Amino acid sequence: MTPARTGPQLRPAEADESTGRGQSTGRGQSAGRGQSGRDRRANRAGRAARTGRRAGDSGTRAAILDSAREQFAERGYDGATIRAIAMSAGVDPALVHHFYGTKERLFAAAMQLPVVPGEAITAALAGLPREPGTSAGEHLVRSALALWDSADVRASFIGLLRSALTSDQAAVMLREFVTAAILRPVASIAAGSDPEDTSFRVSLVGSHMLGLALTRYVLQLGPVAAADPDALAAAIGPVIDRYLTGDIGGRAGR
Amino acid sequence: MTPARTGPQLRPAEADESTGRGQSTGRGQSAGRGQSGRDRRANRAGRAARTGRRAGDSGTRAAILDSAREQFAERGYDGATIRAIAMSAGVDPALVHHFYGTKERLFAAAMQLPVVPGEAITAALAGLPREPGTSAGEHLVRSALALWDSADVRASFIGLLRSALTSDQAAVMLREFVTAAILRPVASIAAGSDPEDTSFRVSLVGSHMLGLALTRYVLQLGPVAAADPDALAAAIGPVIDRYLTGDIGGRAGR
Repeated sequence: MTPARTGPQLRPAEADESTGRGQSTGRGQSAGRGQSGRDRRANRAGRAARTGRRAGDSGTRAAILDSAREQFAERGYDGATIRAIAMSAGVDPALVHHFYGTKERLFAAAMQLPVVPGEAITAALAGLPREPGTSAGEHLVRSALALWDSADVRASFIGLLRSALTSDQAAVMLREFVTAAILRPVASIAAGSDPEDTSFRVSLVGSHMLGLALTRYVLQLGPVAAADPDALAAAIGPVIDRYLTGDIGGRAGR
Repeated sequence: MTPARTGPQLRPAEADESTGRGQSTGRGQSAGRGQSGRDRRANRAGRAARTGRRAGDSGTRAAILDSAREQFAERGYDGATIRAIAMSAGVDPALVHHFYGTKERLFAAAMQLPVVPGEAITAALAGLPREPGTSAGEHLVRSALALWDSADVRASFIGLLRSALTSDQAAVMLREFVTAAILRPVASIAAGSDPEDTSFRVSLVGSHMLGLALTRYVLQLGPVAAADPDALAAAIGPVIDRYLTGDIGGRAGR
């Protein structure tokens, strides 16, 4: 157990950084690049001593997650880079890659999301051909409800929304994250006539799903909160299909 | 100008309570009932002196709005009564009725909503037959966008949502208000097979519209934020029509 964790958090791939994969970005120079695991450890221990930070894995992880939260808030999801996060935490970018893999997984860990949203959606979409008779829209609605029905997921979803409602900076960060990590996989099954049309379709899907979550879990509006997933999938699924692949009236206005 | 006001607020019907309409509820007894306007004024002036509250209309109104916020938060929208709000403000319920007319208008004033949502929706629905070729769904989408495009409306919408995300009590209050004041007028144009079906249909409409507002105005998700009202009405209007009157798959599951 790492006592620094205060909530649900992505489980990192592996706790022992001595097996570091060295996925450095190849751009620019960074202090710890090319050092052995032993050197890196010594380096961080020195830094921890200087800053009074607790040495060891959990201290390093905590420093990385602190820097990540700072950088995501300051620069948005798109603007933050693993390299800048590593530098501000005083560690090698390769170590951040090793602990967290991708920027999306790092974001999920920093925001204590219990799942990595893009991966959950990609997994849900991958399940599509396996359920004959279910449309993509119904499948998406069911998958989202199954995710949200977990209290952890709901709590972090509400936390993110709350910060977006409270701070413009957080709204930018969340928008960029949703666009990059959530809407992009959905775009792969949308039938837009061009990228702009696809992006409009996918954002309509996002808009409706967001409203569903808010109504069901935050406002808990009776009929939508009480409805079983089958009823919601039957009612909303075809709408999601329409947005993904149907006639939505053209974007140029009428 | 009433300096006590800190933001957009419902303009009350008339500032001079000496023309009081006396819409008392007819239940229970209340101190000021049946008094002349002059007596009521003297009464309130006495109370204001006792409590150190500023005498005069704006002081009385501020006291009523304070009590209203308290009672709505404590008892929810359904549980709060004009009578209890008046008693806690130390005024006659008839005066509250005179100043604010209905509980919905009092709520709008207390929450500093720049419009009375139910009245705006009722007015929008009343416009329906006047615009041939526009479906009810498209009309609703257009009307909602026209409302939200006002910065004042957007600000109070976001404020209410923020409090619902922060406090369960506020979520209950908002849910009850949305149900009583916003969804009820919409139900009048829904074609449910029974009240439960109607209520499910209307809450689907609310869910989608809420998601639209969040995506367009809070997250400002590119394509939905940038789309013109025509494009959104064309894309979303038919979905609202489906929820109002179309086949939504039955509620009993399949």
